[in-house]
Amino acid sequence: MKVGIIGATGLVGEKLLELLNERNFPVTELRLFASEKHLGEKYLFRDQEYEIQSLSEDAVKDLELVFCAASNEIAEQWVPILQKTALVIDKSSVFRLKDDVPLVVPEVNLNRALEHKNLIASPNCTTIPVVMVLAPLHQEFTLKRVSVVTLQSVSGAGRDALDQFIYETEVLAYHGEIPKDSASVLSAPIAGNIIPQIGKFRSDGYTEEEQKLILETRKILELDDLPISATCIRVPVRVGHCAVLTAEFASPVEPADVVRVLKNAPGILVLNNNEYPMPIIVEGRNEVFVGRIRKDYSTKAGITCLVATDNLRKGAALNAIQIAEEILSKREQ
Amino acid sequence: MKVGIIGATGLVGEKLLELLNERNFPVTELRLFASEKHLGEKYLFRDQEYEIQSLSEDAVKDLELVFCAASNEIAEQWVPILQKTALVIDKSSVFRLKDDVPLVVPEVNLNRALEHKNLIASPNCTTIPVVMVLAPLHQEFTLKRVSVVTLQSVSGAGRDALDQFIYETEVLAYHGEIPKDSASVLSAPIAGNIIPQIGKFRSDGYTEEEQKLILETRKILELDDLPISATCIRVPVRVGHCAVLTAEFASPVEPADVVRVLKNAPGILVLNNNEYPMPIIVEGRNEVFVGRIRKDYSTKAGITCLVATDNLRKGAALNAIQIAEEILSKREQ
Repeated sequence: MKVGIIGATGLVGEKLLELLNERNFPVTELRLFASEKHLGEKYLFRDQEYEIQSLSEDAVKDLELVFCAASNEIAEQWVPILQKTALVIDKSSVFRLKDDVPLVVPEVNLNRALEHKNLIASPNCTTIPVVMVLAPLHQEFTLKRVSVVTLQSVSGAGRDALDQFIYETEVLAYHGEIPKDSASVLSAPIAGNIIPQIGKFRSDGYTEEEQKLILETRKILELDDLPISATCIRVPVRVGHCAVLTAEFASPVEPADVVRVLKNAPGILVLNNNEYPMPIIVEGRNEVFVGRIRKDYSTKAGITCLVATDNLRKGAALNAIQIAEEILSKREQ
Repeated sequence: MKVGIIGATGLVGEKLLELLNERNFPVTELRLFASEKHLGEKYLFRDQEYEIQSLSEDAVKDLELVFCAASNEIAEQWVPILQKTALVIDKSSVFRLKDDVPLVVPEVNLNRALEHKNLIASPNCTTIPVVMVLAPLHQEFTLKRVSVVTLQSVSGAGRDALDQFIYETEVLAYHGEIPKDSASVLSAPIAGNIIPQIGKFRSDGYTEEEQKLILETRKILELDDLPISATCIRVPVRVGHCAVLTAEFASPVEPADVVRVLKNAPGILVLNNNEYPMPIIVEGRNEVFVGRIRKDYSTKAGITCLVATDNLRKGAALNAIQIAEEILSKREQ
């Protein structure tokens, strides 16, 4: 299969390359695209060197499958061109909420992927683990209300932010503090700090990231009116997003029943009592980790738990590749 | 006034010394107590050197005011002895929930402090900011339900944990990662990680820290049946505790009304739109910072916001000293 990756030099782009190899994805030709400043850089894939190219209609015209892990601006410009001839799996947020674009987590709504018009959107890195936990619980217990607080790692903000965090960690180690006004890719220093803003603020006080989590969760679960609240916080962690997920159901649910349902849910690893998900545990792993499942004492029929994922794997590159794998396997059937 | 500090060499003990000076507290004599290993260490207070002493009945018998910032074990043993002759302000959790011990945040329930029997307990470092925000809102709008997710700094776990974090930050800066099984004062490495466990686990899956936050909040607000849920998470930050605080009221409340009430509440600083509380902002400050006040979309009448405090100041030493100041000023009246 002739495969293209747009945004190949980014953290998600590189993870796509790593996982295509790890999962023996049937690549017969590979083309890697990135912005001007990366032109000529070389990447190794299955013992062959590939050079970063510029995007052009000529360079993409015979591709069969394209993973788009680029900025919203690039996606907006190129996805409509690409989908004329290739199946496009897009990680940007541009098309996720469009009616005729399936927004897919294979474990949750693979059926929607099959309705694609050559474009399938992959959700936000925090939406994916949240819906993977909520979907099987909704099926069994009927969701009434959801509240999410995320603790998101710096790699979710891209390579420049991650480089800044690594630099700040060195400054913190040597000098004991970060100048408060130090230039940062993020809105404030992140080493030794937390930043309760991801994305721009909207007029209702929510951020774009919180809005994405709310609207994408409703679309994937097909619950347009689900009451859901979100607070997204950046924490000084390299890889691994965590979330405190609280859900209320139609009638009271025992933690043991939640454990039973989630232990049977695909892609989820339920931790035993007194263990819990942490970034250092989930980095490099493909599963969505769930732990600390217990009653939510603030409601009559609520459950609260901790959820964590490698945001570059299941939160991004892995989910995109799984979508492609599922579409290919259906074609073969 | 003859003042003693028990646990003077700890992070809270040292902050007590700093604040007694900063606030011109009327100290005529000062005695500093700590464990054996600190005996003979010297501290400077108002240009005079004080040596760390051992606790003995003789050494405390003429003290008039004692701040106890020691372990639960030390508090359990010594507070009953101390309170026979001195007013004791205790930071441990041993006596906080006892019926005949006032649990006091001066801005919230000073009236309770006046009923003391020579012992007043100062709440947990996360309880203090939470009740300072909830109390004025309850008075105006009537609380129905509360949910808290905390992001707590490492200094809250004491000096050994803070030293471990500083060491781990250096390892992270030099080597890029922390060995997962590195010996840690906490239950896991904290640099580059988050740990969703503070205190031991109880049989219901909540931790001791979460239980403290729930029960202390109910006691201070005098709402024994308030439905309240808590998740407490340690984050790689030196000083400054943050919390996502969600509250539901008897009827719908506008964010602007919450802003109005909190702007008039003592000890609270409400940040403007698009600003928000962060550890690097609150460290060294006495106020409880509140920001990101907005509707909670998961409930009909809920509000959610971000709260942050210097956990060593208002979360610990400052609150204890304010209690003493208020009692002294009442005596003088």
